[in-house]
Amino acid sequence: MKIAILGAGAMGMLFGGFLSRENEVLLLEKDPARVAAIRESGVTVTEPDGTELRFAPRAEQIDAIPAGETAELLLVFVKSLFETEALEAARGLIGPETRLMTLQNGVGHEEVLCRFAPPERVVIGTTQDNASVCGPAAVKHGGAGKTALGPVSGSAEALLPLAEIFSRCGFPCEASADVKRLIWNKLFLNASASALTALFQVPLGFIVDEPHARTLAAKLMDEAVAVANAEGLDFEAEAVKEQVFAQLSRSKGGLTSIYADLRDGRRSEVDTISGAVVRAGERLGVPTPNMAFVVAAIHAMENKAAGSR
Amino acid sequence: MKIAILGAGAMGMLFGGFLSRENEVLLLEKDPARVAAIRESGVTVTEPDGTELRFAPRAEQIDAIPAGETAELLLVFVKSLFETEALEAARGLIGPETRLMTLQNGVGHEEVLCRFAPPERVVIGTTQDNASVCGPAAVKHGGAGKTALGPVSGSAEALLPLAEIFSRCGFPCEASADVKRLIWNKLFLNASASALTALFQVPLGFIVDEPHARTLAAKLMDEAVAVANAEGLDFEAEAVKEQVFAQLSRSKGGLTSIYADLRDGRRSEVDTISGAVVRAGERLGVPTPNMAFVVAAIHAMENKAAGSR
Repeated sequence: MKIAILGAGAMGMLFGGFLSRENEVLLLEKDPARVAAIRESGVTVTEPDGTELRFAPRAEQIDAIPAGETAELLLVFVKSLFETEALEAARGLIGPETRLMTLQNGVGHEEVLCRFAPPERVVIGTTQDNASVCGPAAVKHGGAGKTALGPVSGSAEALLPLAEIFSRCGFPCEASADVKRLIWNKLFLNASASALTALFQVPLGFIVDEPHARTLAAKLMDEAVAVANAEGLDFEAEAVKEQVFAQLSRSKGGLTSIYADLRDGRRSEVDTISGAVVRAGERLGVPTPNMAFVVAAIHAMENKAAGSR
Repeated sequence: MKIAILGAGAMGMLFGGFLSRENEVLLLEKDPARVAAIRESGVTVTEPDGTELRFAPRAEQIDAIPAGETAELLLVFVKSLFETEALEAARGLIGPETRLMTLQNGVGHEEVLCRFAPPERVVIGTTQDNASVCGPAAVKHGGAGKTALGPVSGSAEALLPLAEIFSRCGFPCEASADVKRLIWNKLFLNASASALTALFQVPLGFIVDEPHARTLAAKLMDEAVAVANAEGLDFEAEAVKEQVFAQLSRSKGGLTSIYADLRDGRRSEVDTISGAVVRAGERLGVPTPNMAFVVAAIHAMENKAAGSR
């Protein structure tokens, strides 16, 4: 399969590398240094057990895509802030059969993708795999898990061959009509507990053990559930909170990536996570004052870190 | 005048010291070391210009108040958390003519005081003076300003002699029927910008310069104004915000006491400030989701600091 990947960040390199085992992969990246590094030495993936894997996907500057090429699958891994811009640049790769796909955290990506292809060719999903950049063209595979994908419109069965490709390349994957539910389920934790670990600069256990943080997490989940249900899903808030708090109790020492982003002075993905819930709430008429507070507070902390550098 | 002061913290020692110039002052304090230090060497006040002043008010343990004594004025300077408890302990000093008075930040103190004396003998107020403890019986007078006091019930004129006593002892003071307005005006800044300086651990200037922090401060002021107006005042939200942001712009390097409390791992007074607005909002049916978020977040940060010690 001819797969183009938008964005050669941590996830782009991980998926690009693994998928190049059985597919013709083209990594599209804005940063010329990253493109040069991948061309020179390929992509190195260090597995959780320390094993080093080397892959050689093709890499191009996103603004220098050769004309006349199209992709069968365009997998989007650029930060949501730059999603539209990157898709504009890669528009030439989108032919009448091209599927557009995202596995990124948050909700609302499909709205962007649907501006570039009809809904029956847009695939959304969620993955438990994660990665962090650890060299010019190298990533550390933080953890491996399940990947699920599903259609924005149409049946999940049509996506079974695509799921099979991901599975064979190292991402155990299923096609599911319930993928929206899976995405929201991941979001309930990320938009509540994870966001608060960033705000308070604490491990996950603090959110389940400290009563005020727990109360705030519960309010955030109530708001997210109300938005999800207004969008046509049917979550039960008490069950969601019980499940998330149980999950937190099992990983009390866990540090989230948004916590690390703020600690290290990086921009976080709060707009894709909590911010997406706020925007969906605005669209659907569901108030989300606590979620909006968290988004603004995390941006303020990002700017504090930026100002002190 | 026979004045008893509940709490020999920074403000208790400052007011106790100055008022002892012309009055019989009794400082009541829980901490035996503080009582012993005051008895041994009096109260030392270091003025903003470096001048050292020494005063010798009487000091007693709050749980060992000699029977049969009453005070003409009982001035309350204990943290709001311990206000009721301290007033219970000092009940013996409250005779049929005793006035109860508070100059502490926040709203709602009068409700507590009115449980110990009828409203016509309860005096509320606000002061621009501040102080910090800098030795066993020593305080630094951070800044001097105006003090205003007013009645919970009855006319302000009846309080002119009391205001005169404060003025003569070094606290330029007026009696005002508008004291509630003055208290709320102070609260608008403290419940918004000051609370956020604690949450983000920043100086005041950050709140006026960083756009997300500024947005949050504006939301907090909107909520506080709505509560104040539901309580019968008539503030105009835009004018309040303009005035507070102008004030912040004039003291960008300023560090608030609630910022320092959190930085140094102390419990803050967030319940008296932002928490009082939340409670008043609940009583009056005015929603204050942002204010409630701040209160919970600051308590979470207090517990984080306590847990990490």
